[in-house]
Amino acid sequence: MNPDKLKIAILGGTGNIGEGMVLRLALQNLMTDGVKNEVIIGSRSRETADEAAKQALLELGNCGFDTSKIIITGNTNLEAAKAAELIILTIRFDHVLPLLDESREALENKILVTPVVPMAKEGNLFIYKPPAEGSAALAIQKKVPESTKVVAAFHNIPAGKLKDIVKCKAVHDAIVCSDDAEAKKLVMELAKNMGCLRPLDGGPLNQASIMESLTPMLINLAKLNGLKDLGMNFS
Amino acid sequence: MNPDKLKIAILGGTGNIGEGMVLRLALQNLMTDGVKNEVIIGSRSRETADEAAKQALLELGNCGFDTSKIIITGNTNLEAAKAAELIILTIRFDHVLPLLDESREALENKILVTPVVPMAKEGNLFIYKPPAEGSAALAIQKKVPESTKVVAAFHNIPAGKLKDIVKCKAVHDAIVCSDDAEAKKLVMELAKNMGCLRPLDGGPLNQASIMESLTPMLINLAKLNGLKDLGMNFS
Repeated sequence: MNPDKLKIAILGGTGNIGEGMVLRLALQNLMTDGVKNEVIIGSRSRETADEAAKQALLELGNCGFDTSKIIITGNTNLEAAKAAELIILTIRFDHVLPLLDESREALENKILVTPVVPMAKEGNLFIYKPPAEGSAALAIQKKVPESTKVVAAFHNIPAGKLKDIVKCKAVHDAIVCSDDAEAKKLVMELAKNMGCLRPLDGGPLNQASIMESLTPMLINLAKLNGLKDLGMNFS
Repeated sequence: MNPDKLKIAILGGTGNIGEGMVLRLALQNLMTDGVKNEVIIGSRSRETADEAAKQALLELGNCGFDTSKIIITGNTNLEAAKAAELIILTIRFDHVLPLLDESREALENKILVTPVVPMAKEGNLFIYKPPAEGSAALAIQKKVPESTKVVAAFHNIPAGKLKDIVKCKAVHDAIVCSDDAEAKKLVMELAKNMGCLRPLDGGPLNQASIMESLTPMLINLAKLNGLKDLGMNFS
């Protein structure tokens, strides 16, 4: 892995949370100490991904950033995973496991980041619905090759604030869990340089169930208390 | 229940988190819009509880507060529960269920507040260990009379900041869950007037497992990231 130019695939990168991640990760190329990278948006359709990549570059240009140093491309989820060294799964849990089956070979020796939250609606509120393994993170780890380093992160980042690259100065805490110390460190560095996150070490991967369960809680808290696009801070 | 003078028992009130709760609740008698109350500290030994009550009054007096309007007494957990209208369980989970058995009659028609977190140590870190019912709150609800209104609250309040009634201006979020709307409202009002908490409606009691699981996470985050006495904020 070449830390001077990290290839990052954001599978499901055309979705709500993926969009902000693409912008914030791509912008790190303009920072003195960001991890230099190439962002590949993955989607079910290559055309949709391609279009999202063009839109992201356009938006960064419109904000006044020098896009000549920024690389954002689009591809199918499978091709994006093949090309990348670090893969972020911004995909609904029920679509994740089939996609991992399909792209198993592409995951060998890669870092796989899961912000995936299995949840369901019960009445007006959301509840956490972990699989038998205890969490999406542990179900994912069971599914991927042994050489894949699974990192749980970015579950509780408010999508609206993440996307708002110019105005949003709010800093939220991003808990990162993994059994692989090096992969965890790299993801914490990426998070730090997103400009709106304070990464916190959340311990080993089996702690991810708590982070996953926070997402339905944040949605419910917002709904029940007239709040919006909630993030978390610990102090 | 007379809202002009609410009798509150804090079972296990001589412990770390109980101590701050006693002080903050008793102080509401000096506020224009606080719920006027009488605080009864419960403990396994009446003498220990009595001594803690005297110490609390002394501390409030030393801080310059007019203690003539403040009532804090001590008693056994059982007698405290009998005397109170609202009972707060600041007790370890493994001691809670036997105590509820013993004081079953005293719980009829009362509000029972649980900040109880079932957790265990695994290596250097804590993990959440809910009972078969899914959470301590649901196990407690199953145990008590049907007329008892169970409210889950105060799981994630940093004890040190809660105790520091003079200096601590930090405001943390306190999520409150219950199936009884009126009991939830009263506990949210008590929380608000503690002076360092913003109460948030967390929905029904079956949401309590998430709040309970946050406590080991906060302890782990503090340990892993060199932080201390962590509370939470949602924004």
